[in-house]
Amino acid sequence: MSEILYAMDILGTLVFAISGIIAAGEQKMDPFGGAVIAFVTALGGGTIRDVLIGSLPVGWMLNTQYIYVILTAVFLTPLLKKYILRLSRTMFLFDSLGIGLFTILGLQKTIDAGLPPLVAVMMGTVSAVFGGVIRDIFSNRIPLIFRGEIYATACITGGLLFVLLLNLNVPVLFATLAAIVFITLLRILAVKFHWQLPTLS
Amino acid sequence: MSEILYAMDILGTLVFAISGIIAAGEQKMDPFGGAVIAFVTALGGGTIRDVLIGSLPVGWMLNTQYIYVILTAVFLTPLLKKYILRLSRTMFLFDSLGIGLFTILGLQKTIDAGLPPLVAVMMGTVSAVFGGVIRDIFSNRIPLIFRGEIYATACITGGLLFVLLLNLNVPVLFATLAAIVFITLLRILAVKFHWQLPTLS
Amino acid sequence: MSEILYAMDILGTLVFAISGIIAAGEQKMDPFGGAVIAFVTALGGGTIRDVLIGSLPVGWMLNTQYIYVILTAVFLTPLLKKYILRLSRTMFLFDSLGIGLFTILGLQKTIDAGLPPLVAVMMGTVSAVFGGVIRDIFSNRIPLIFRGEIYATACITGGLLFVLLLNLNVPVLFATLAAIVFITLLRILAVKFHWQLPTLS
Repeated sequence: MSEILYAMDILGTLVFAISGIIAAGEQKMDPFGGAVIAFVTALGGGTIRDVLIGSLPVGWMLNTQYIYVILTAVFLTPLLKKYILRLSRTMFLFDSLGIGLFTILGLQKTIDAGLPPLVAVMMGTVSAVFGGVIRDIFSNRIPLIFRGEIYATACITGGLLFVLLLNLNVPVLFATLAAIVFITLLRILAVKFHWQLPTLS
Repeated sequence: MSEILYAMDILGTLVFAISGIIAAGEQKMDPFGGAVIAFVTALGGGTIRDVLIGSLPVGWMLNTQYIYVILTAVFLTPLLKKYILRLSRTMFLFDSLGIGLFTILGLQKTIDAGLPPLVAVMMGTVSAVFGGVIRDIFSNRIPLIFRGEIYATACITGGLLFVLLLNLNVPVLFATLAAIVFITLLRILAVKFHWQLPTLS
Repeated sequence: MSEILYAMDILGTLVFAISGIIAAGEQKMDPFGGAVIAFVTALGGGTIRDVLIGSLPVGWMLNTQYIYVILTAVFLTPLLKKYILRLSRTMFLFDSLGIGLFTILGLQKTIDAGLPPLVAVMMGTVSAVFGGVIRDIFSNRIPLIFRGEIYATACITGGLLFVLLLNLNVPVLFATLAAIVFITLLRILAVKFHWQLPTLS
């Protein structure tokens, strides 16, 4: 099981990194800028979580696999761009799986650090979405997630579901899978049916 | 005494959160964006201070009261907006009290961590004003505090006064009250009489 | 030797601070804004490194020399601006020396914290260039280092050279000097001959 989660983690990291490089390319950045945006998008959320809960040095520094995955994305994305853009549905699917996975892994790490469940739901959501927020700020645009998309909302809802299931003594493995599937599906359905949050007037 | 400080802390958090939500509304953000800006405005300064001085996990994670206060602001502000905007003088008063309080509480926490008084004055000021700085950056405007208002300057001056009083062996309780009142009054007078710092040419 | 490194460190801090104040002046900020940008430019990179590797409280809090150097820059730069702008070649030389020094000092601190060499090269580069990145974000412009200049690239290349030399059992002192000179020269030559990285299409 933990091997499947690890494989998904690597895959999610790859997809987030690719989305960062594509954003950097649209801003006509150089390859170094592209690499920075790729790292920030892929690792930024988990980094902020680790700093805030005091789990230092931050997690990805202890496993260089993540760095190599992102560097691979930096070198291959420009070459394979034509194919990647054609795979936008697949990318979207993995991105949706990614935010589900990152939310629940981040939530569990926060609970393991002895912090309250409500804080853990927040930190899970931060893990999943803040890489994208920083990417957007670096590229000088207002983060899309603040403009009505069901994105962070899916993470929060799925995180609350996970905490609820644990309180009902559902086994951790089942609660983990259920919450990840819930977040992934909610995100996919929201995009398919154009569900939007209202804006603050 | 410490109960009065705690009540003021909660009140300051509430006022800062409301100001964040109102800023988010002006940017036509969705409720999630509003909640993020509210949290960042209310807790951002103290969070940066705690990270830099190594007091981790950051303070607000250990007391969920702050989270509930901010969530209350997120839900009530849009409903009560008409009344809140009419209360702008009261809001301004509490904001001025808030920066005084946050400066001195942050300063004391930094001294308690064994760091030099000069660093403590900086960290007190960071506690008080950086939530607003990040709020402004998130909303894509250049932070107002860099444009000539006596705001951070009040915090720095009040922080130096506090350190001076302690060095003169003034009791901590009296020094705390004096410095908070000093910062609050300086901020209020500066706005009333349009005191401005000159800009760097 | 370590005294020469310390003197260079102070000099680099001073030059970075001055560049921050000049940027703040161009944005018509007030002196407080100028001081913030000066601190962020001079200490921001090392601060991010220390937070990420968990070396808290961050280094500059334990030695107030850095604070006094920056405050000196804040007060003197506006008065001496005419002369400083005439010294732009000297400033550029010290800036180039500064990024070389900050890269290798940051790299060594990260290795001393027990982290992998690849992470150390990243953290060395972060130490050297992220102050400037945050300065640019605060001043609301897209960071210049993402737009094709050989700047961070020089730090990364020099960092890799340093790690290579250590692996070849070259004495630390020699490896340190060689890598600093390499980064400084590469930066100077890149500006002189207009070497550019291609942009991502």
